[in-house]
Amino acid sequence: MEVEKNGGQEIEAPKNITIKGILGLLMANTDGNGDAKKVISLGMGDPTAYSCFYTTSAAQEAVVDALRSAKFNGYSPTGSCRIFVPQPPYELAPDDVYVTAGCTQAIEIALSIINRPGANILLPRPGWEVDLSAVENLADHNTVAMVIINPGNPCGSVYTYQHLKEIAETAKRLGTLVIADEVYGHLAFGANPFVPMGVFGSLTPVLTLGSMSKRWLVPGWRLGWLVTNDPDGSLKSPKFVERLKKYCDICGGPATFIQAAVPAVIEGTQEVFFNKTINILKQNSDTCFQKIKEIHCISCPHKAEGSMALMVKLNVSLLKDISDDLDFCFKLAKEESVIILPGVAVGLKNWLRITFAADPCALGEALERVKSFCQRHSC
Amino acid sequence: MEVEKNGGQEIEAPKNITIKGILGLLMANTDGNGDAKKVISLGMGDPTAYSCFYTTSAAQEAVVDALRSAKFNGYSPTGSCRIFVPQPPYELAPDDVYVTAGCTQAIEIALSIINRPGANILLPRPGWEVDLSAVENLADHNTVAMVIINPGNPCGSVYTYQHLKEIAETAKRLGTLVIADEVYGHLAFGANPFVPMGVFGSLTPVLTLGSMSKRWLVPGWRLGWLVTNDPDGSLKSPKFVERLKKYCDICGGPATFIQAAVPAVIEGTQEVFFNKTINILKQNSDTCFQKIKEIHCISCPHKAEGSMALMVKLNVSLLKDISDDLDFCFKLAKEESVIILPGVAVGLKNWLRITFAADPCALGEALERVKSFCQRHSC
Ligand SMILES: Cc1ncc(COP(=O)(O)O)c(C=O)c1O
Ligand SMILES: Cc1ncc(COP(=O)(O)O)c(C=O)c1O
Repeated sequence: MEVEKNGGQEIEAPKNITIKGILGLLMANTDGNGDAKKVISLGMGDPTAYSCFYTTSAAQEAVVDALRSAKFNGYSPTGSCRIFVPQPPYELAPDDVYVTAGCTQAIEIALSIINRPGANILLPRPGWEVDLSAVENLADHNTVAMVIINPGNPCGSVYTYQHLKEIAETAKRLGTLVIADEVYGHLAFGANPFVPMGVFGSLTPVLTLGSMSKRWLVPGWRLGWLVTNDPDGSLKSPKFVERLKKYCDICGGPATFIQAAVPAVIEGTQEVFFNKTINILKQNSDTCFQKIKEIHCISCPHKAEGSMALMVKLNVSLLKDISDDLDFCFKLAKEESVIILPGVAVGLKNWLRITFAADPCALGEALERVKSFCQRHSC
Repeated sequence: MEVEKNGGQEIEAPKNITIKGILGLLMANTDGNGDAKKVISLGMGDPTAYSCFYTTSAAQEAVVDALRSAKFNGYSPTGSCRIFVPQPPYELAPDDVYVTAGCTQAIEIALSIINRPGANILLPRPGWEVDLSAVENLADHNTVAMVIINPGNPCGSVYTYQHLKEIAETAKRLGTLVIADEVYGHLAFGANPFVPMGVFGSLTPVLTLGSMSKRWLVPGWRLGWLVTNDPDGSLKSPKFVERLKKYCDICGGPATFIQAAVPAVIEGTQEVFFNKTINILKQNSDTCFQKIKEIHCISCPHKAEGSMALMVKLNVSLLKDISDDLDFCFKLAKEESVIILPGVAVGLKNWLRITFAADPCALGEALERVKSFCQRHSC
């Protein structure tokens, strides 16, 4: 399957390395001796490194109970790999929902079941909105789907209802389905509320992918889902649903006792838990926006309004001995023990992705270090 | 990637259905009304349905502790997706061992990393030994690997040291690697002890795939591993290891807290726990062998000496109204509420796979029902 990126800018991402791989190299580049500053990572979208992002004990104890019940050590039985989805946009049938090993496996399944020889899929270039005219230009008769990520990683954007509607209308016109990666679903803290793409399932079929990873702060639990939003039944060719079920039958899925705990996790989680996470993320996003204004060689075109990350533009012409974003990140790791993802890793040369799912103090300290790094290296 | 079966017999497996799918259909065919007998499933290799196969509390509490420690809710960090393997045949380096989401994901990873355009892999036809001359005939210059399953599913065979050595020598001659599915590793209870294929890694590179699923009776935990046994470094082209690491970086893997518990699980599990499982399996294998002798239309050429399953041959000519194995299993489910897998599901028409990882009483009762079913339908 060919995979294309929308938008016209040239991509120079290192082809043979994963984001995890780059972050590992950066970590290895920090100064490990005793005098070094404590490493602060704003690299991975994994908030659990910071104690302020600890999951609710209701969730933890629901999993303990399921494990100790002695009922969920076996394979998850045929046909029950489907459960509910938290807050569906409208009534879903059991055949609409499939449990997966994190959003990662949901992506793998979605791409596998729509794959056919010659097919292509439009993937998002990092950006604040989808460039719908670029999408229309890129799409051809082999385009089977377009992917959106909302709330967005890496830009922290949250699409408006109107924009999502236009995406659905474009997809309808092109005859493609929409794959909506909503792994950051509900983590919106700006002007736009989070609108699930499934709301537009009657315009064009939508596959919604999500997980507990971010909202419940448990990426290590590997619990996600794939939902078909298709009230008009366009996907409901028996073949499509059959492929989905078959894939779930053989692919393993998440640990059975974690699956079994999900209803109790949802039942037991209080709004105050979600609100706490969102408040810290909002505060951190504000901190980033303010601090970055003080640093002359980087700029943030849009404040993050959702997810846990934002993109900032690096102006290397203002720095005397930094050649590009990769060089910036390696020297920053070495000199300041701060880890930031170079933009090339997500296809944007001379940008930086800052993940702000950190302890507010650590975040402030890290940005201070970025500031003095930039001052030291400025022309 | 083309996948071939070794041996010459024609295969008529239903192409578009999984084993789980067939078992689901059989289950749906049992008589669900109040008068019906209790359903006994000898279909899936999942012992946890029976209380005699309950995992050790040491394992369970190790997972509870890891979960409650609050340290393992995050993604598993880069580079640490490698742990130890229980009882390796010889010293392994950290780069030799990769944790996976069950043996299922280990299989997926193994096949993905050795895949290249035009490559083929020799898969085992169910049997009691590998037909090595058939393997030599089938192999061509595009054959990159041969797969063995030892102890064997579906036949319950346990290969001798000598046979494994001959497999390794054949693979060496053919220039292929061996993928050894040892998901039933250590579950041997006949004359032959379990010999890990990795012992022959110096003859030809061996990828060993395994999991906690069967030995610890926790298939729902989704904890497996992939081990490269390659003391002479034939696989150690940087590219191979790099692909393996990259695949692990992006593929998700098992829940982090379950991974984290593994050392404590191994440490805390006593021999008596393993022995209990093996004793029940041995007793059940004996029961099957004796009982099947009493049933005229099925025969068992080899007693199971390992794993949790055995194959029996069905002689439909002795039955008046049964057309084949599929028909046998559907009628058996309907009339006797006993679930057995038809051989076609594993490529052997008019054979049956009986999984004996059941409560000994339930197993005896199920075989009694098979007996009266066969009597009722005999010519
Ligand atoms: C946009 C996006 N999709 C999917 C994932 C993977 O989510 P999960 O941990 O549920 O597999 C991530 C992880 O950061 C992500 O950023
Ligand atoms: C031969 C064989 N390999 C692999 C597996 C899958 O093992 P796991 O549960 O660890 O994914 C099974 C399951 O029964 C099996 O029989």
